[in-house]
Amino acid sequence: MILIVGERINSTRQKIREAISRRDAAYILAQAERQISSGAQYIDVNCAMTAADEVQDIDWVVSVLQSSIKDVNICIDSPNYLAIERALGTYKAKGGLMINSITAEEARIKNILPLALKYRTKLVALTMNEKGMPDTAEERFEIAKFIYERVQGTGSRGQEIYFDALIRPISTEPNQAKEFLRAIPMIKSLGAKTICGLSNVSFGLPERSAINSTFLSMAIHAGLDAAILDPTDSAIYASIKASGALLGTDEYCAEYIAAFREGKLR
Amino acid sequence: MILIVGERINSTRQKIREAISRRDAAYILAQAERQISSGAQYIDVNCAMTAADEVQDIDWVVSVLQSSIKDVNICIDSPNYLAIERALGTYKAKGGLMINSITAEEARIKNILPLALKYRTKLVALTMNEKGMPDTAEERFEIAKFIYERVQGTGSRGQEIYFDALIRPISTEPNQAKEFLRAIPMIKSLGAKTICGLSNVSFGLPERSAINSTFLSMAIHAGLDAAILDPTDSAIYASIKASGALLGTDEYCAEYIAAFREGKLR
Repeated sequence: MILIVGERINSTRQKIREAISRRDAAYILAQAERQISSGAQYIDVNCAMTAADEVQDIDWVVSVLQSSIKDVNICIDSPNYLAIERALGTYKAKGGLMINSITAEEARIKNILPLALKYRTKLVALTMNEKGMPDTAEERFEIAKFIYERVQGTGSRGQEIYFDALIRPISTEPNQAKEFLRAIPMIKSLGAKTICGLSNVSFGLPERSAINSTFLSMAIHAGLDAAILDPTDSAIYASIKASGALLGTDEYCAEYIAAFREGKLR
Repeated sequence: MILIVGERINSTRQKIREAISRRDAAYILAQAERQISSGAQYIDVNCAMTAADEVQDIDWVVSVLQSSIKDVNICIDSPNYLAIERALGTYKAKGGLMINSITAEEARIKNILPLALKYRTKLVALTMNEKGMPDTAEERFEIAKFIYERVQGTGSRGQEIYFDALIRPISTEPNQAKEFLRAIPMIKSLGAKTICGLSNVSFGLPERSAINSTFLSMAIHAGLDAAILDPTDSAIYASIKASGALLGTDEYCAEYIAAFREGKLR
């Protein structure tokens, strides 16, 4: 089964921004709990788009989550190492941590990689650099290889990295889904894992959940290890459970049948 | 886009058996028309499980379809060359024909291949032989290669073959979906096409359409060229349209958006 990171607590969403702004702990907790009950193993927390101070906001969200959800696993989603550092310091639960993300940009590696090493977190690395986002699978692979060697060069061979090959909207860039899918086995050949921020693929299209769930099935077939997505979306949930049953990680379909019995496949 | 063969007019289904038995042309036509409006390019016709005479029954169904649907494309689905021969003789429409199926068994090749050549039909070949159905992708490939060379040996290099690598239910054989998916690029390396009788994969499981649509997405990603399926199933329909949009055969998602506007993606 892929590792599922629940994407809903993201300040690009207006309701989340508002809940953070008014310090509505019940709303934030309900978002986390719904995602966990739909199979999220990590809860992504993004406060980068709030109007106020990101460092204060992420500190508050992490405190809320760990105070009510035992051993909650948190994915700290920020380009800002100060916000990441604060969230890491605030986190006292016994779960796991993931940092989302570094890129091939020197400043991000220099500021964020040491935090991942110090706090022994999983680390998401986006395959982009100073020049921006690559177009082809080969370019994505080259950037992943650069980051992978750069991280290994610090002597941190144990660092668990998930490369995000950056899917782009097919509504404007018809070839990008294919390039992303081609990049997965190439990046995995490094010995690294892969992750996908799923919902970008369907930006600008109607019935986004049909595109998202179909693309997720293809990416899992291509070897995807983890995804940042909304597990409360029933089509996405069904795709995850069906993929496990089909590819043999859910042997004899036990989890799939359990999901059916809980009424979660519709 | 994959070639879609609509599976509904199949005598393993009780309502179809009964409609054929009472010569209910309106029922049969409605099944064909629903499938065509959902994107079926070929209509599979299987009369092998009726209680009466298969030859008479398939003759009647083909007559009904061609009398009302202009240029209807028919997939004649039978292991019985006498039934196939009759259906081919009855068909006078200007559409296309497909025969489903030969295997590596000598008797089926000897009796059915000449009919495909004479009537210039597409031909489905199941990757099985006298010993039964293979377990691994490699065995499927070897059988496909045998059939492919056998057909080419008749001098019929123009014969269009779709190999069906025979998916089996994951409820009892957890590894078979993976083996099927691995077999697709192997068989395509021969220069042949691939097809899938989709619904077998989910036999014995609840919410079969979740398994079927997820597996279809994976198989299309693996390179599948055609599928025998129920296009009136909304999850399957959405998977086909989303796959086209994702893999760039539906550039700028024009068909996907049209399907949405027609209200067909739910």
